[in-house]
Parts: sequence; C-alpha cells; structure tokens
Amino acid sequence: MELAPRPRRLTQEERSAETRARLLDATIQSLVEVGYARTTTTRVCEIAGLSRGAQIHHFGTRADLLTSALEHLARRRIDEFRAKVESVRSNGAEPRGAADPRGAGLDLLWESYSGPLFIAALELWVAARTDPDLYERLLPLEREIGRQIQEPWLGLADDASEPSPAARDLTQLSHHMMRGMVLQRILNPDDRQRRRQFDLWKRLSGAANGAPGNASHEEEKP
Amino acid sequence: MELAPRPRRLTQEERSAETRARLLDATIQSLVEVGYARTTTTRVCEIAGLSRGAQIHHFGTRADLLTSALEHLARRRIDEFRAKVESVRSNGAEPRGAADPRGAGLDLLWESYSGPLFIAALELWVAARTDPDLYERLLPLEREIGRQIQEPWLGLADDASEPSPAARDLTQLSHHMMRGMVLQRILNPDDRQRRRQFDLWKRLSGAANGAPGNASHEEEKP
Repeated sequence: MELAPRPRRLTQEERSAETRARLLDATIQSLVEVGYARTTTTRVCEIAGLSRGAQIHHFGTRADLLTSALEHLARRRIDEFRAKVESVRSNGAEPRGAADPRGAGLDLLWESYSGPLFIAALELWVAARTDPDLYERLLPLEREIGRQIQEPWLGLADDASEPSPAARDLTQLSHHMMRGMVLQRILNPDDRQRRRQFDLWKRLSGAANGAPGNASHEEEKP
Repeated sequence: MELAPRPRRLTQEERSAETRARLLDATIQSLVEVGYARTTTTRVCEIAGLSRGAQIHHFGTRADLLTSALEHLARRRIDEFRAKVESVRSNGAEPRGAADPRGAGLDLLWESYSGPLFIAALELWVAARTDPDLYERLLPLEREIGRQIQEPWLGLADDASEPSPAARDLTQLSHHMMRGMVLQRILNPDDRQRRRQFDLWKRLSGAANGAPGNASHEEEKP
C-alpha cells in the first residue's frame, strides 16, 4: 500500500499570508452581514477562528483592518473584472450578447456592483462621512480602485485607444447609476424594474457613445 | 408709553408640537453630523436641550425617533419641492432656465438630493440593511416619500397628463444617478465633474423623453 505524499509544511511566510487572508475575508463577511458599526475586531477574530493576538500582529487597528479588507477584496474583484473584460474584447465569446461589447461591459460592471465589494465599500463610505480617520485612509484607496475599474472598461466603451472625455463622462454616469441602483436595492430587492431601467440606460448611453465631448477634462476622481 | 402686547401663552397642544419638532430637528442634525451609529437618544436630547423624559414621552424608542425624524424632514422638503415644481410649471419664472422645464425639474431634484434629507435617509438606509426592525419601519416610509417626490416631478418631465412608462423609467434613472452622485460626493466634494456629467444626463434624458416606452409597467417602488 502506497502512502499519499505527505503535505508540505507551509513556510512562515505562507502561514502569515494565510492568516492575513482569513482575517480580511472575515472582515468583509462581517461588514456585509452586520455593517460597519458592529464590525468589531472581536467579531472578526471569531469569524476567522483566530486570536486577538494574531489580528493585532497583522493589523494594528480596526481602521487598518477595515481598509486592508476593502483593498484585498478590491484586488481580487479587479483581477476578475479585467479578465472578463479582456475576454469580451479579444474574442467576443463571453458573456452572451458580446456582439455589443459595450453592453456586455455594462453587464460586467453591474455584476461587480452587485457583489460584496460594493456593499463593503458602501458601509465604509458612509462611515467615513463622519469619521475623519477612516476618510483619510479610504480616499486614496477608493481613487485607486476607481481608476483600476475604469481603465479596462473604458477600452470596451470606446473604440479609440485613448477614451474621449465624453466616454469618460458616460462611464462615470454608469457608475453613478449603478451605485444608485444598489442603494435602492437595499429597500427593494426586486430587480425587475431596475433591469428594465438598466436596459434603457444601455440604449441611451450606447446611442450617446461617440457623441462629441467637451474640450476640457480633468482626471477622474474616485 | 404703550406696552407691547404680551405674548400669548402656548396651549398644551402647541407646546407638545414644539417639543416634538425640536426633538426631530435635533435627530436629523445628529444623523448628518455624526451618523446613525452615534445618534443616540442621549445625544439628541442634548442637542434639543430637552430631558430624556420628554423624548420618551413623545418617541418611545430610538427607532421611533429616527423614522419620525426622517418623515418630519421629508414632509417639509416635499412641500418645498412641490411648491417649486408648481412655480416652474405655472409661470416658468423659477428657477432660471425654465424655458426647459424638464431641465429645471432635474435641477430641483438635485437640489433636493444635495440637502440633509438624503444624507439622513442614506444613513438610515444603510443601517436598515443590517437591522430588520429599522428596515420594517423604513420601507413604507421610503415608498411614500418616493411616490410623493415623483408625482409632481413627472408632471414636468412629460407633457401628457398621465406619465408614460418610459417617462417613469427615465425618472427612476434620474433618481439612481443623483443618489450615486451624492455617494461619490462623500469622498469627492468637488462638484465640477459631476456638474458636467449632470448636464450630459440632462441632454441624454431630454432627447430620450417622448421615446416609445414599454408596454407593461408596475407601480414604482421606493
């Protein structure tokens, strides 16, 4: 009888990375389940099955844990998003309806807004409104997330290699729209009306794409 | 020398209404200044300069106080909003640019979203996501506010006496858009880019108004 190969022991570095990831995943889970105010470090440690000592070692403060968790999830979602956008752009195979890559891009954006990332971000944004420390931490992170989500998407929305100012404004309108939709969804989970409104927005923004833009345009912020 | 007329003493009913209004205004002020989690009944009483006894007499629980405050502010804002919309509709005098009543209506809607009502609502919506009791109280109130804000505005957006399904969807898109803009504003208070995006939305939705709508349409929810 052959023995299964003995699992390799994790290195110190691997164990550390695993502990960090467990704490960060637990933080997002807590933000989504009970919201910002009740996401205490104690609760996060309980969900993660780790000691307070481990948490303090990796993330000194609650604010550190919260913004690191958002960054951690954002990286994963942005990677997924880039991969899907790339797939739409390169072969038109995914998702269905890629005969309209711009519409497919809007579907991907909505998929991204519908998940836990934006719920976690929403909890932190609203808390940051009245918490200057959190605000200072969140601001650069959200700008970076915004930039990274916008770049691959703009490539779909606009044929030009450099997106026009009008295409950037349309993209920002899409973001505003979807954030507003997620907010409404809190009190009204039925997506049927939003689906119809979303389709209307696809038609309106599709028709507007390529329209002449404005001359001056600054870098987009978060 | 004539004496100034002695101020009439308030009736019991008037004093009671005044106490209620002070508590409700203090609640909104606290929601805007420190957010939902830190809006305790103790803090509200301090801001109002009233005793805990007065608060408990008028609003038994914190949830009662919070939703009553939102309703109180909403009534005032809806009355203001109706009056302004009526003024745009009847004489085109207010605000400037009323040659385009639909655009003027969008400006009024944004004015309404930019104020304390929506900030207070946002705090409660996000809290309600993870608080079933607050959710149950907020849901009927938000539906009613949504209906009352939508009705006068739809009259401006559409020439027909009964707004078309497409006009209702466009209106909902305007609401999504502006809620998303207020959210972004938390982290980016500079309105210049949003102003340009808002103007783009005015043009897009203005051009779309009157386009054929969908056949089926349910009553809009919050």
